[in-house]
Amino acid sequence: MSKTKRFIPDWSEEAPAPGTFRSIFKYGDPHRFKHPSDAWYRMMKEDFHLSDADFAARKAEGLETVILNRPPSLGSEQIDALASIVGKENVALDDYTRVKYAHGKTTEEILELRRGLIREVADVVVHPRDKHDVQKIVQYCDAERIPVTVFSGGSSVNFGCRPARGGVSLVISTHMNRLLEINEQNQTARVQPGMFGPAYEEALNNAPGRFGCKRRYTCGHFPQSFEYSTVGGWIITLGSGQASTYYGDACDIVFSQEYVTPAGTFKTLEYPATATGSKVNDIMKGSEGSFGILVEVTMKIFRYMPENRRRFSFMYPTWEAAVNASREIMQSEFGRPAIYRISDPEETDRGLKLYGIPGFVDQFLTLRGFKPMQRCLNLGNIEGDRDYTALVLRKIKHIARQHGAISLSGYAARKWEHTRYAEPFMREDLNDYGILIDTLEAGVTWDKLHFLHQGVRAFVKSRPDTMCMTHASHFYPQGTNLYFIFIARMEVEEYVAFQGGIIDQIIKHGGTLSHHHGVGRMLGPWMDEHLGPEQMAVLRALKQHFDPNNIMNPGGQLGLDNVYIRS
Amino acid sequence: MSKTKRFIPDWSEEAPAPGTFRSIFKYGDPHRFKHPSDAWYRMMKEDFHLSDADFAARKAEGLETVILNRPPSLGSEQIDALASIVGKENVALDDYTRVKYAHGKTTEEILELRRGLIREVADVVVHPRDKHDVQKIVQYCDAERIPVTVFSGGSSVNFGCRPARGGVSLVISTHMNRLLEINEQNQTARVQPGMFGPAYEEALNNAPGRFGCKRRYTCGHFPQSFEYSTVGGWIITLGSGQASTYYGDACDIVFSQEYVTPAGTFKTLEYPATATGSKVNDIMKGSEGSFGILVEVTMKIFRYMPENRRRFSFMYPTWEAAVNASREIMQSEFGRPAIYRISDPEETDRGLKLYGIPGFVDQFLTLRGFKPMQRCLNLGNIEGDRDYTALVLRKIKHIARQHGAISLSGYAARKWEHTRYAEPFMREDLNDYGILIDTLEAGVTWDKLHFLHQGVRAFVKSRPDTMCMTHASHFYPQGTNLYFIFIARMEVEEYVAFQGGIIDQIIKHGGTLSHHHGVGRMLGPWMDEHLGPEQMAVLRALKQHFDPNNIMNPGGQLGLDNVYIRS
Repeated sequence: MSKTKRFIPDWSEEAPAPGTFRSIFKYGDPHRFKHPSDAWYRMMKEDFHLSDADFAARKAEGLETVILNRPPSLGSEQIDALASIVGKENVALDDYTRVKYAHGKTTEEILELRRGLIREVADVVVHPRDKHDVQKIVQYCDAERIPVTVFSGGSSVNFGCRPARGGVSLVISTHMNRLLEINEQNQTARVQPGMFGPAYEEALNNAPGRFGCKRRYTCGHFPQSFEYSTVGGWIITLGSGQASTYYGDACDIVFSQEYVTPAGTFKTLEYPATATGSKVNDIMKGSEGSFGILVEVTMKIFRYMPENRRRFSFMYPTWEAAVNASREIMQSEFGRPAIYRISDPEETDRGLKLYGIPGFVDQFLTLRGFKPMQRCLNLGNIEGDRDYTALVLRKIKHIARQHGAISLSGYAARKWEHTRYAEPFMREDLNDYGILIDTLEAGVTWDKLHFLHQGVRAFVKSRPDTMCMTHASHFYPQGTNLYFIFIARMEVEEYVAFQGGIIDQIIKHGGTLSHHHGVGRMLGPWMDEHLGPEQMAVLRALKQHFDPNNIMNPGGQLGLDNVYIRS
Repeated sequence: MSKTKRFIPDWSEEAPAPGTFRSIFKYGDPHRFKHPSDAWYRMMKEDFHLSDADFAARKAEGLETVILNRPPSLGSEQIDALASIVGKENVALDDYTRVKYAHGKTTEEILELRRGLIREVADVVVHPRDKHDVQKIVQYCDAERIPVTVFSGGSSVNFGCRPARGGVSLVISTHMNRLLEINEQNQTARVQPGMFGPAYEEALNNAPGRFGCKRRYTCGHFPQSFEYSTVGGWIITLGSGQASTYYGDACDIVFSQEYVTPAGTFKTLEYPATATGSKVNDIMKGSEGSFGILVEVTMKIFRYMPENRRRFSFMYPTWEAAVNASREIMQSEFGRPAIYRISDPEETDRGLKLYGIPGFVDQFLTLRGFKPMQRCLNLGNIEGDRDYTALVLRKIKHIARQHGAISLSGYAARKWEHTRYAEPFMREDLNDYGILIDTLEAGVTWDKLHFLHQGVRAFVKSRPDTMCMTHASHFYPQGTNLYFIFIARMEVEEYVAFQGGIIDQIIKHGGTLSHHHGVGRMLGPWMDEHLGPEQMAVLRALKQHFDPNNIMNPGGQLGLDNVYIRS
């Protein structure tokens, strides 16, 4: 193929026009794009049996202006009452705003918005200025039985922002987005829940200048959605960051929380440990706005020492070898890497292609026994004290060698870091040509890892022309997670059924319904089956206590009141 | 003082006679004793202004045979029904058994038993054979509204075993005390809750012979009560082991749990992490038998590598230096020691006397600037991979030197290890001569540590002739615990008021009501004030859900139904 003749699809390079559907569903910065590489494009054509002609024209781009044409069902006195709490400038009733704050980044909702299909929206969008506003709003809405759905970063991938019962969309990130205080003795940061990842991390990194601290700090939590998710969202959905293997999941780095609920406002106590009964601080984590609204949180923070960071990457001959080595690393009691990832054979091979591995490297690896569709990539980094990171690197290298791996130096890890938050930007390009990409993920113990991996893969690959890439990216002594990425050309209707089938397979094969995406309304219908009636009854009892009138994120969230029947 | 003339109190060396009060309250093995050393004895005489004459005769030894003379209030058909579930041989109605299983090791209850005073007891003592028995008993008792109070190790120090409403004492440790399975891939152990520490640890240490494992394991949890407490008790009271700084508190090493409650029986799911709403696995920890009965638990276990253990001990010039160094160690991100303890000046000085520090060492330390009533002892050990323990030791040494400490080698740590579980044995000797020893403890953040320490000390020392020794023994990046030991000659009535005063001071000065002793019935009256009405309402909502008829450990446990009015 000569370069001059090569066809390149006309990937969209325009920021969506204001007021359009596309401006709602496009991921991240409107002016930022990440297009499929040539290798990506070639791979898709090959795998999906497509030709350049299939990429001749973009479809269902959502360029139309949003028109809702649904009058709010709240009375004007109710709107006025809300406006009197937060100020008129913090209340919006226009079509666009109501639709915008009714959506996260769930694949299904994006596909629907592309076709101009609007599901439930709130009657009014309210931007509280502080926790006192939230308290007044919750009290008023509880008295008036007005549903309240919380919107913060809007990065939900499971209908977590959908105002399924109308009412109020409460946007936390507009005003409640500041780092209030760093307690350097305790190594904690008091922060408002609507603060986005980069602003939070930047403030911690620059704590000496910003807060007069002696040291620089890091939040330790870097999910793929880091740039467009908020501290509060991390906690209430039980998120995990890419460096969770060292720093812990979001639930581990919460020190105390303040909530506004219909049953009252409270702040959990600030102790490094306490033995005073079931911990309310734990109970609130993962409540996904169903019990109340997180209005302030004190997070654990960590010393920021990027100068000590060490990177590594290895190629393992097989998935089994990569898994065994990873388990050995996690159980050996010498400390832990921060980022640690292993890709299964399909993800490894596609990754090598996509990132443009030179042919001679491929040949070298193959000759050395690291064969395509068997070999597995591992990469990561280590953070902490300088001697600690050196020790952990040495130990990881030793275990990798014992399991037949070959070191690729820190190169692949550095390469990966450059794209660590950028992958979601590619979704619009694929969707523009009718190709869907979505992810599902599950926590799993070591003893069920292969069963789960094989079970889900068998299902996904039973559909022709479907990619299924899997990695594990959050490690614990007892197991890890599996993150499944599937890509295929399909219509929305098939997608919904296919996705449901994958979720069924995850549960059937011993995975948890969600490792770090949370439940939202999408996975709600599976909750009863997954947790069992006794444990769902515990969640419902808490719901009944905190929110007896069911105004907090009602309509399917966490499966507490299942209004979405599983298709 | 010539050795020939030296008076030694006649410390009791006899195992308590069967059937006596003393056989109930004596700590641990009836044939095991630890008497105060000569130094201890001299110190008590000096501090409390006593003479040998005060130690001439033991008082209120509780040598009398237990006579209860309270007919059970359960009907014979109810007793028969319970017997038909567990077998007649597992039901006891005799006075002694009813009194025995109504008591833990709370100072106040011991002092009362010494005087023959018996508070509430159960009507019948039942020893379930397995979880199915427990399920049937709970169902039956719920239907019949018969209170059930759980007894496992019986090491509670806060009336946790007291059947405040009569009914059934359910003894978990008699039969339900086996290690069922080790999952070597997941590094987990499935264990019955009534298994005592030593049996559990021994089985894990010898996993290759016992379970055909490839490796040896450790439980990682070693509270002072290790020999006489059970795995289930550790979890439901939120205990901490002496090596918690590395292995975590009991709540951290629980993987999954199975509970029998009036609202149903369930087992929490086994995942290394999950994002499916508030975690029921967390909610049950610390429930202290108030929600239901823990019938099986899967614990995280750790590789057992005693050959890599490194010990250290240091003398710091001041408490401030010891605290600052400890904080630095916990926040430096190079790993953590397993056991880590610092003693305040009073504990250090008394400790040096008690453990018989040679005079020349004392002089040497003083000359070097480590002055009595200023200097502070630090000791601990490090566990894990061999190179890891070496690294952590090196780092700790470095930080200790930076803070002016002098190394005492591993000697003090080894010396401490020999007595790590033995101290409670001394209580009977002191009590025999009217001297009380008790402990209270609190979790605290670094920024409130000195305030709490000084506040509690000021209160305790305001009473003449009262020792107050304090150490911190469970460390976290955000803080630690303070463990207060007070010793004085006083009567029960004064003791109760004095203890209440200390608890008031703990709360007033920013400590948590309990760091790892749990709440029981003793601290229940403080719970509403401590947690606040909104958070207590959460615990009560859970109680209402699990146990609507209030049959599970009723009568003040966790302060859920406060029947004990705070004195």
